[in-house]
Amino acid sequence: MEEISKTEIANWFKNLQDNICYSLEKLDGQSSFKEDKWDRPEGGGGRSRVLKDGKLIEKGGVNFSAVSGPTPDKILKALNLPQADFFATGVSIVLHPQNPWVPIIHMNVRYFEMSNGVWWFGGGIDLTPHYVISEKARNFHQHLKTTCDKHSPEFYKKFKQWADEYFFVKHRNETRGIGGIFFDRINDNDGRSKADQWRFVQDVAETFIPAYKDAVQDLKNRKWSQEDKIWQKIRRGRYVEFNLVHDKGTKFGLDTNGRTESILMSLPPEANWEYDHQPANDLQRETLSLLKRGIDWINT
Amino acid sequence: MEEISKTEIANWFKNLQDNICYSLEKLDGQSSFKEDKWDRPEGGGGRSRVLKDGKLIEKGGVNFSAVSGPTPDKILKALNLPQADFFATGVSIVLHPQNPWVPIIHMNVRYFEMSNGVWWFGGGIDLTPHYVISEKARNFHQHLKTTCDKHSPEFYKKFKQWADEYFFVKHRNETRGIGGIFFDRINDNDGRSKADQWRFVQDVAETFIPAYKDAVQDLKNRKWSQEDKIWQKIRRGRYVEFNLVHDKGTKFGLDTNGRTESILMSLPPEANWEYDHQPANDLQRETLSLLKRGIDWINT
Repeated sequence: MEEISKTEIANWFKNLQDNICYSLEKLDGQSSFKEDKWDRPEGGGGRSRVLKDGKLIEKGGVNFSAVSGPTPDKILKALNLPQADFFATGVSIVLHPQNPWVPIIHMNVRYFEMSNGVWWFGGGIDLTPHYVISEKARNFHQHLKTTCDKHSPEFYKKFKQWADEYFFVKHRNETRGIGGIFFDRINDNDGRSKADQWRFVQDVAETFIPAYKDAVQDLKNRKWSQEDKIWQKIRRGRYVEFNLVHDKGTKFGLDTNGRTESILMSLPPEANWEYDHQPANDLQRETLSLLKRGIDWINT
Repeated sequence: MEEISKTEIANWFKNLQDNICYSLEKLDGQSSFKEDKWDRPEGGGGRSRVLKDGKLIEKGGVNFSAVSGPTPDKILKALNLPQADFFATGVSIVLHPQNPWVPIIHMNVRYFEMSNGVWWFGGGIDLTPHYVISEKARNFHQHLKTTCDKHSPEFYKKFKQWADEYFFVKHRNETRGIGGIFFDRINDNDGRSKADQWRFVQDVAETFIPAYKDAVQDLKNRKWSQEDKIWQKIRRGRYVEFNLVHDKGTKFGLDTNGRTESILMSLPPEANWEYDHQPANDLQRETLSLLKRGIDWINT
């Protein structure tokens, strides 16, 4: 079987961006994506797409990029790699809903290769409900498990645990949300071919829309109160804290002089910080009690 | 002359917190500070005071702390210090106003010593106007210069430049606001005695209230529009970005397991992020053009 080329991967990601934007516009039913094409002075570029003031989505971004050139020193150092040219392509999504009952969702799928033959895939999908509802959490994780199980009996457990660790907000001692799956630097070291890993990444990417549709189902039309809205903004504040303090992708992008507006499209339209905020009702208290690592959402 | 003791410094800072809170409550005229006393398991503790929903101040914190114990490894590593016990005390202030015409202000004064005899002071005051008004900026910097000049003809220039560098938001290529003064690790290496340096730090601390009173004068009753309020929230978003991505004090506090609610009291009550936000009027455009390092506010 022929090797999968970077161009093939980038084109598939570009097409993925188109398909996801199309599905999200249909799901939203009110607003549509605006596109910014940008070039990277050192090589490559991207298409940033942002939807705002939708019926479902208050602010959402679906970004594609394919960048290349000499590997920035910060990357070489951080990843302990020898000097060589690099190529990186991927799609990143963050959707902040209008309705506090609807969760925030995030997906990233990416491919990285160097001129010396090094390559890997990374990615994941995770959900950050403002209110954690167990059945919805179970359903979301079931989507991810079904996808993982098609490729390896170990993937779901391993990548679910990786997400638990990655999306942990240490200074709050809580997880960002209910997690999902997260993986990085997967290549052929585990005995699976590049074609196998690529097919897995594609399957993860294609799980996004069905998983999100189920996650918003029944919730997007649910009535919310002022109390719910305040809670949503407080939880969005925690989302900002994770992304700016802990998220490696964000740090990496800002450190390597990435396109700031595209990197920070993940930040919510509006977030609140109140000193020593306390939950105002039982569901808020329950949500906090569920922002823990190691919860087996499917079997609880 | 007798050496100034850590207890003397801590007590003075505690008293400073009282005086500043008293002055701010009078200035606000509507709300008052709520206090949380806290203990640090490893030694020492603090008094966090927060005022919210005032007439002038939407959210403001004036924190005192005096902590001690074995120096955390992260601090030893970061500062390249040998193992020893430490003592650190200081007052930190951030005030977010209701009115977009009124600037955000920040002050920190601090003292650090180790059981092996190492000691230093640090601190500074800086201003972050949502709308930069040159006369107000000049007046603010004049307050700081007057204070600095009483102690050394070099201080203002040196510490103003230090603030320009410190409060620079690299990923936005803009300064956080109009700066002010910033200094760290000043001890007797410059030939000035501990008593001299302490008197300087005290003078800086006592510049806070008069400088802030002048900064809000005429502005606190100025009418503002919805456009101004949106702009304020966007600028607050940048304040969040600086504090969570770049601010060494915040990073340090979170890294060393500090009291999260006290550290993050600096975050605004409400902040917005809009993709690729553009200024809506001339004063917003002018403000952006003035968020640069190296502006001589006093002589321009």
